[in-house]
Amino acid sequence: MATGVWLAGGRGSVAVTSIVGASAIRAGLADPTGCVTELPQLRSPALPTIGDLVFGGHDPASTRLCKKAEALAAAGVLPARLVEALREELATVEPEIRPVPVAATQLETATLIAEDIAAFRFRHSLDRVVVVNVSSTEPAPAPHPAHADADVLRQALAEPGVVLPPSSLYAYAAFLSGCSYIDFTPSTGARLPALDALAHRHAVPYAGHDGKTGETLVKSVLAPMFAMRNLRVRTWSGTNLLGGGDGANLADPGANAAKSTSKQRVLGETLGYEPQGNTRIEYVDDIGDFKTAWDLITFSGFLGTSMRMEFTWHGCDSALAAPLVLDLARLTAAAHKCGRSGPLSELAFFFKDPLGTVPHALAEQWALLASFVRGLGDA
Amino acid sequence: MATGVWLAGGRGSVAVTSIVGASAIRAGLADPTGCVTELPQLRSPALPTIGDLVFGGHDPASTRLCKKAEALAAAGVLPARLVEALREELATVEPEIRPVPVAATQLETATLIAEDIAAFRFRHSLDRVVVVNVSSTEPAPAPHPAHADADVLRQALAEPGVVLPPSSLYAYAAFLSGCSYIDFTPSTGARLPALDALAHRHAVPYAGHDGKTGETLVKSVLAPMFAMRNLRVRTWSGTNLLGGGDGANLADPGANAAKSTSKQRVLGETLGYEPQGNTRIEYVDDIGDFKTAWDLITFSGFLGTSMRMEFTWHGCDSALAAPLVLDLARLTAAAHKCGRSGPLSELAFFFKDPLGTVPHALAEQWALLASFVRGLGDA
Amino acid sequence: MATGVWLAGGRGSVAVTSIVGASAIRAGLADPTGCVTELPQLRSPALPTIGDLVFGGHDPASTRLCKKAEALAAAGVLPARLVEALREELATVEPEIRPVPVAATQLETATLIAEDIAAFRFRHSLDRVVVVNVSSTEPAPAPHPAHADADVLRQALAEPGVVLPPSSLYAYAAFLSGCSYIDFTPSTGARLPALDALAHRHAVPYAGHDGKTGETLVKSVLAPMFAMRNLRVRTWSGTNLLGGGDGANLADPGANAAKSTSKQRVLGETLGYEPQGNTRIEYVDDIGDFKTAWDLITFSGFLGTSMRMEFTWHGCDSALAAPLVLDLARLTAAAHKCGRSGPLSELAFFFKDPLGTVPHALAEQWALLASFVRGLGDA
Amino acid sequence: MATGVWLAGGRGSVAVTSIVGASAIRAGLADPTGCVTELPQLRSPALPTIGDLVFGGHDPASTRLCKKAEALAAAGVLPARLVEALREELATVEPEIRPVPVAATQLETATLIAEDIAAFRFRHSLDRVVVVNVSSTEPAPAPHPAHADADVLRQALAEPGVVLPPSSLYAYAAFLSGCSYIDFTPSTGARLPALDALAHRHAVPYAGHDGKTGETLVKSVLAPMFAMRNLRVRTWSGTNLLGGGDGANLADPGANAAKSTSKQRVLGETLGYEPQGNTRIEYVDDIGDFKTAWDLITFSGFLGTSMRMEFTWHGCDSALAAPLVLDLARLTAAAHKCGRSGPLSELAFFFKDPLGTVPHALAEQWALLASFVRGLGDA
Repeated sequence: MATGVWLAGGRGSVAVTSIVGASAIRAGLADPTGCVTELPQLRSPALPTIGDLVFGGHDPASTRLCKKAEALAAAGVLPARLVEALREELATVEPEIRPVPVAATQLETATLIAEDIAAFRFRHSLDRVVVVNVSSTEPAPAPHPAHADADVLRQALAEPGVVLPPSSLYAYAAFLSGCSYIDFTPSTGARLPALDALAHRHAVPYAGHDGKTGETLVKSVLAPMFAMRNLRVRTWSGTNLLGGGDGANLADPGANAAKSTSKQRVLGETLGYEPQGNTRIEYVDDIGDFKTAWDLITFSGFLGTSMRMEFTWHGCDSALAAPLVLDLARLTAAAHKCGRSGPLSELAFFFKDPLGTVPHALAEQWALLASFVRGLGDA
Repeated sequence: MATGVWLAGGRGSVAVTSIVGASAIRAGLADPTGCVTELPQLRSPALPTIGDLVFGGHDPASTRLCKKAEALAAAGVLPARLVEALREELATVEPEIRPVPVAATQLETATLIAEDIAAFRFRHSLDRVVVVNVSSTEPAPAPHPAHADADVLRQALAEPGVVLPPSSLYAYAAFLSGCSYIDFTPSTGARLPALDALAHRHAVPYAGHDGKTGETLVKSVLAPMFAMRNLRVRTWSGTNLLGGGDGANLADPGANAAKSTSKQRVLGETLGYEPQGNTRIEYVDDIGDFKTAWDLITFSGFLGTSMRMEFTWHGCDSALAAPLVLDLARLTAAAHKCGRSGPLSELAFFFKDPLGTVPHALAEQWALLASFVRGLGDA
Repeated sequence: MATGVWLAGGRGSVAVTSIVGASAIRAGLADPTGCVTELPQLRSPALPTIGDLVFGGHDPASTRLCKKAEALAAAGVLPARLVEALREELATVEPEIRPVPVAATQLETATLIAEDIAAFRFRHSLDRVVVVNVSSTEPAPAPHPAHADADVLRQALAEPGVVLPPSSLYAYAAFLSGCSYIDFTPSTGARLPALDALAHRHAVPYAGHDGKTGETLVKSVLAPMFAMRNLRVRTWSGTNLLGGGDGANLADPGANAAKSTSKQRVLGETLGYEPQGNTRIEYVDDIGDFKTAWDLITFSGFLGTSMRMEFTWHGCDSALAAPLVLDLARLTAAAHKCGRSGPLSELAFFFKDPLGTVPHALAEQWALLASFVRGLGDA
Repeated sequence: MATGVWLAGGRGSVAVTSIVGASAIRAGLADPTGCVTELPQLRSPALPTIGDLVFGGHDPASTRLCKKAEALAAAGVLPARLVEALREELATVEPEIRPVPVAATQLETATLIAEDIAAFRFRHSLDRVVVVNVSSTEPAPAPHPAHADADVLRQALAEPGVVLPPSSLYAYAAFLSGCSYIDFTPSTGARLPALDALAHRHAVPYAGHDGKTGETLVKSVLAPMFAMRNLRVRTWSGTNLLGGGDGANLADPGANAAKSTSKQRVLGETLGYEPQGNTRIEYVDDIGDFKTAWDLITFSGFLGTSMRMEFTWHGCDSALAAPLVLDLARLTAAAHKCGRSGPLSELAFFFKDPLGTVPHALAEQWALLASFVRGLGDA
């Protein structure tokens, strides 16, 4: 079941880690640690294998994949021996990561994107392609009347000017090409009524938002713990220090706000109330690809006794994200094959800010996911 | 549904916090924070109310309950205003916490215990009594052939000498009195074939072991998180600093070993392998009733990338334990009423070292508990 | 040597903790933990004793001192038994904390302040009075030409309008009354050329700025440690969570900026370069008077090896500040008596943002302080 | 001033990091971060330069230096590029790290050690040689009457049997060869009256004990901070998790006890009392060369208010130790040249358990060191 993975942001850290990782697993050089669809409880013949995945994409940068992989190795994200061993594989993918098309109107740009995807699909005889947004986080877009209706949208895109943010334009191009779409970032992506309508019209599924890779993952098990024990969380205050490209971008107040909101949502949803405190994101260049998050939680127990918990998470975001990108591509492709269209809310397990009305406690998201995989059948 | 709660260790911190707390809730002076059977999902008419609970017990110490309560208030465990307001209530319970009976043989001691319980039951016209062990942790007992068979046990107890550790003698006395038994400590309690047979013979249920109040509670959600994400935990090393009576006792190597084993069990059970590292328990008198635990977790992600997490838990053990004692008494009494006998493995949610072959992930334990409560019916 | 301590902000947490503490020490109910002038190395007959201190002040609030003290006891800042025992003492001080005078011009206001201080001095036959600013942090004031010259300042103050921020108006009134002045906050205080000139003209000393009570205290020993070991600090990033009145006020961006700058100064001064990272101050009401600060430090060692340190400080700001207020009042009064005028840079030990060109390493500040005390002679 | 550095344990992590580092600095491939004698305040023409140092030593292991260096690079202790670039340099040192001599009596062993050192000195025309013990920590030796007297010692060593532990036999051999001796470990080394007498007799200096590389370094600034602020430390409890060869060795209770004692000494010496709590050392293989230490400090402030501080130190022991080995070799050689003999207590700055009656506060140790360096003159 040859499956294309078209990466918007194909030369970024997450994308390159995904490509190197999939190649290493296929070559038997690494085991699939971090890939949840390789767990016994979720393994299914309905999913394309990691070896079935073929990578392409767009990126405004022109850094060669092997250079980026070497930089990631120097930063401790990838093992140097893998980068060395997979030089040829990377050279094969190299021409498939193309410059971002530019045109006079957004409709023309979308058409060029769709053409690139179609050519990629044809070249590799792919059964289907999943478009995955792993590019930098965008600020929230200005509202536009065309966001509400698919036909109005098409007309608006044909005019000069910006109607859709890049993540949404990718979703648009994906849906028109009959491809599914995953947004791994907090950007808008397919979350507009017009795009949801298009996904249904073209019978393709989509998933998102914002891969749950670190602090929020921990929150999604600790907050339910406090709830299950009837302990009252009074304060939950978090600090995220991050470097690398994503960090610099998130220091931008617009993007920062989007991300911080997405990070606190789990608390209200699992506790049933909003404790005091915020999540702060700070850019510290020196931290590099490894993120340090510190959270302080104060809570009341029996008869109001005041207690506290702190945690520090020191994780490599790209290494946490990449296996989830592979999981999501496999799951979404299988859902597409099974005839699912519209939002895949059963994939909430993977996201900070999941689509639909879904549980935010990790264990419940896991149960939903396991049932989703069983529902895909035996291929 | 008047229900007796007979506390072995009735003048200790956990017992007195439970008594004060139940009185405060009954009097409308406190809300039931920390009591899980008061959560909407677990509330059931099949359970006795907190107001239905009547307290009695044994304790070798003779400190008056109000003195102990004042000491707990000074240590920040109880609000001073509650202790002040509940002086009369405590005076009512005072005579019900009796000295531990002593006799020439363990059989006679058990008979005296049973008589105390019977008199307590009669005095208060109780429908049933739940015996709860909240006394200090014992070292593991020497094996004895009488542990294997109920009839041999009875004969052995009639001889001078020590056959059963105190926690097990309480279970023996409880079962012979037709009472259910809960062990909130890591001690042996009812975990002997002879006692299990007795529980079935007398048609009473029992529960245990070792209330899950702090670090292990956190482990029971974090370890499944790593497992669900297919991340490989390499090290899990914990330090527990605790003061107060329990701390001094646990500094004893025998008791310490029992507790530490109980605390690491969750890792092997939820991860499927044993990471490196141990759990240490250290007594620091100055820490008092508040326990500080620090855990370091190192783990591998995608392609072997090394990451780490630390947490510090600063909790008041008595304040965390007491509401669970109330929950367990209510649940066990209801199960007894419904005709359950033998080990209540569905109460694994409450314990570090639960009885039977049960899940160790908190979310699964919660599902088991919720289904158990539903099974109790509408009273 | 009867010495007045006139507190601007005399009903705030720091002031009331200082008053209760001095009374308790005088009454033999508490020992002088936290008072550095009671250490054997710094004890000197040249200093007024704690028993010599008489308290007065201004505050816009009208909460009675004993009410405030009870609130501090409830929050765990003061022992309830002390507040109970010192009720009479507090009633004696009560009328000495007066409302803040208001007048048509700042000159008139300063005159009213000076009159209040003079009356206080007369009532208690005080040898001298130290004015201490422990009121809330102000935003940085707008520059004004009158700040540069004492005579121009006097003329400007006589006009309607705001020339000086409140902290500086207190310094002005203090100097004109022949009183010394201490600024325990990051506000402007005496740090204007016109006020410095006035201090010299009236032959009174002054000290400041911003009492070093927590995170910055730790920085002032850790930063020199890295410097002395020739380790390269790459990142020093701090988060301060604080509640209470000071916290709410510091959430104001203006005040926050003043405080954050003051907190990072020690790094550049002791390391010789500015590492990456900032200090953030966040208001979390629930935290109350206890502040939690978390700092992450990343550093390079031999051959560039990357290492890291984290610390969490959980301190009660009022309890850390109050003994320093007593120390500073005693030291400044003694310096005044010895004929010192102008800035007391030797008191850098006490401040985040000390006056003058002084060392920022705590040990060097200590040596400076010890030599200062020796220089005061034997009284 | 060609200076030999003879390393007992010359193929261990600290030794190899020192050799690679000195070579890298000499070759201009690295800067001397972590070397305190390169700080402007301590730089002195009286010291041999890093380039003047020539390395030799003994080790029971036969792992080639370049293999060990590669292993250290893989573990993140050394940069791989340096190991690659210094292959030839390491090959030059390779034959100078010789097997540990074995003989029928300890006297003969000492003679063989002395011969190896003499030959090394001759081969490289060295002005003097410093013997540095960087081998694994020994358990405390059994007392022996010969430890008290140099002449008795000589006779006892001539008999079969073990009189001195290896670290002390090295000190013996060093002194008889006219070499100075440094013990970087907590082992006995020169700390026996007989050896001290020998050092004076042969007019050579010695230094030790136990390089201060991590948690104790932090303690040596934090404990004085609490003392200078008159804050009462109630608990200081530390956990050290370490892997690598040293970790495995320290898991041995004998060695562990020596090290733990050495680590708590700073508290009593700087605070003037012993707070509650211990330092624990735990071996966790997976941690490797990076050590994680966690310390909890509880303290009382004004009026007894209870506060707390925690810190986590995540450092690479070899990277912290190696530059100090270079510093100590340079300082001890210069002292030897200047005619100093016996214990160099002025080097307390470098050690957890310094020789002589010396300050334990880092800032005072620094002042002592600076004055020592100035005393060495201009060469």
